[in-house]
Amino acid sequence: MSERLLLNVLRGQTGTRMPIWMMRQAGRYLPEYRQTRAQAGSFLDLCYNPELACEVTLQPIRRFGFDGSILFSDILVVPHALGQDVRFEEGIGPILPAMGVEEIDAMIARFGDDPSSFDRHLDPVIETVERLRAALPDEVTLLGFCGAPWTVATYMVGGRGSPDQAKARLFALQKPDAFARLIDLLVKASERYLSRQIEAGVDAVQIFDSWAGSLSPSSYERWTVDPIKRMTAGLRRSHADTPVIGFAKGAMHDLGRFVAETGVQTVGLDWTIDVAAARKQVPSSMVTQGNIDPQLMIVGGAALDAAVDRMKEGAAGLPHVANLGHGITPDGRIENVERFIARVREGS
Amino acid sequence: MSERLLLNVLRGQTGTRMPIWMMRQAGRYLPEYRQTRAQAGSFLDLCYNPELACEVTLQPIRRFGFDGSILFSDILVVPHALGQDVRFEEGIGPILPAMGVEEIDAMIARFGDDPSSFDRHLDPVIETVERLRAALPDEVTLLGFCGAPWTVATYMVGGRGSPDQAKARLFALQKPDAFARLIDLLVKASERYLSRQIEAGVDAVQIFDSWAGSLSPSSYERWTVDPIKRMTAGLRRSHADTPVIGFAKGAMHDLGRFVAETGVQTVGLDWTIDVAAARKQVPSSMVTQGNIDPQLMIVGGAALDAAVDRMKEGAAGLPHVANLGHGITPDGRIENVERFIARVREGS
Repeated sequence: MSERLLLNVLRGQTGTRMPIWMMRQAGRYLPEYRQTRAQAGSFLDLCYNPELACEVTLQPIRRFGFDGSILFSDILVVPHALGQDVRFEEGIGPILPAMGVEEIDAMIARFGDDPSSFDRHLDPVIETVERLRAALPDEVTLLGFCGAPWTVATYMVGGRGSPDQAKARLFALQKPDAFARLIDLLVKASERYLSRQIEAGVDAVQIFDSWAGSLSPSSYERWTVDPIKRMTAGLRRSHADTPVIGFAKGAMHDLGRFVAETGVQTVGLDWTIDVAAARKQVPSSMVTQGNIDPQLMIVGGAALDAAVDRMKEGAAGLPHVANLGHGITPDGRIENVERFIARVREGS
Repeated sequence: MSERLLLNVLRGQTGTRMPIWMMRQAGRYLPEYRQTRAQAGSFLDLCYNPELACEVTLQPIRRFGFDGSILFSDILVVPHALGQDVRFEEGIGPILPAMGVEEIDAMIARFGDDPSSFDRHLDPVIETVERLRAALPDEVTLLGFCGAPWTVATYMVGGRGSPDQAKARLFALQKPDAFARLIDLLVKASERYLSRQIEAGVDAVQIFDSWAGSLSPSSYERWTVDPIKRMTAGLRRSHADTPVIGFAKGAMHDLGRFVAETGVQTVGLDWTIDVAAARKQVPSSMVTQGNIDPQLMIVGGAALDAAVDRMKEGAAGLPHVANLGHGITPDGRIENVERFIARVREGS
């Protein structure tokens, strides 16, 4: 066992207090983040600036003493490193030029010819990981991450986010062979990127499948479950000790299959399911993570306390990581984050 | 037993062929709809024009011979009849002035003082129902509908649709008492509106909870399940023979509880779940409805055939209504609708 509580729980240890971190914990709800953010140029400039990215990653650790620290970056650095144009617009989110079959095949050829340019593009992120491991207190678990192939691909062919990623779903139905080639590329590139994060010092990695919820069962099997399974299997071969967290937001109706088939060690839960109900779907040795509604970080009060209590009861005696069910929003309130942390730790 | 196949199946009859209708079957994918739509002023003008609303309702029956015909209207005629401004903008959807607590209480007082103005506002829709029953072939089941209180309320306090109706969810968390009063008003007004539809000639009614999927379990219980339960109980008292279809889109992880608690006779399925998996969650006497991915009406071909076959196998021997998992989109293709219908009816 390491001295890192979160890492130990991600490896299945029970009988400790419940570790805590928070998705998007380095974010706009923090005044110190907004201050550092203003010093960087674009949002991607911040992701590629090791000094500033390290600083914003450390800010919530200093302020709140979370058990886990997650690398500050974005899931779309992977398509960006693969040569796609990516920009972020205030109030809209990411905007990419939607790819067609030709662009996909050209991208695959470029990566096949020379993956080192992909690596070089991501060197600043890897440097951020190295700096983080050196700067973080020893007992804090460092988490790396990437987007799941399906979610990243939806932006690559859809151009931006939409309620049910209709454009990408349609592309996958109409051009399944080209879409499968894109997914294969993303499996390879993302696994390579996570391996480098692990070698640079992260203790565990999370794969974010934010748009898993809009798929039909057969598409979910092909585009969400199978690619994550291949990435997890690859990482287990190269880095057997590094736990993988899988988070398929919006797909809480099929958790048993998700964990059995993907082979992830920890499953992330969104706020639409009770932890107790989720635990019934998965083996007791499985680690769960989540799942407070991020809106309760705005609301606070008795509603937040009740949600934390339900989460704790649902996971009592089982390996569980306290977290939100999705990222904290810019209007989340600092006093409610403090209340959340205190309530999780109360009586433990 | 009536001579209406769909009505019989909605009442639990098995051993017949599988009835078919399609959500949004009177819609922009049909050239004849677009032609009639161009004769009306605004979208709401079309909803309130009995002659034209009747015409667009009948168009897909003439063209495809569906077993069910659903009244052409919109879920937002209820807040409109309650005095809220509602308009539809091309490419955006509905836009309403977001209500606060004062506006909610003023609306409740107005309705309490004189519900007859609410009724009068909806008279044209009731006239459309009467015309439809007279015009439809006897064997075609006529369906009425309304939005579920939660979904309608999200537009009333949120002002428009958004991926997870965050604004309305926040309102409900921050001002639960006012939100509960709004929901109570909608339960009463919607039940009154459905009763009038039934008295004017509809054979069954569907309650659409399009935004049920974004709620936490406790909010889902309070804002989706409980209001639908009260409406269903009220309708059972006044119109015991009229089946109620409940469709909580995006909430397929909790179907067992949904049907047990709401008391609906038929549960609508979206495309994220296999019919076979859904049937395992509900009693075998329960009627299911759905659930072809609407995008397959664009794609067609073997993918559509396979989805129809999975639906048929999943419901074999059980009461099931063939439908889509959500409304057909404007880019749905007529030849794929024909293919869908032929495939459902093949071999039966």
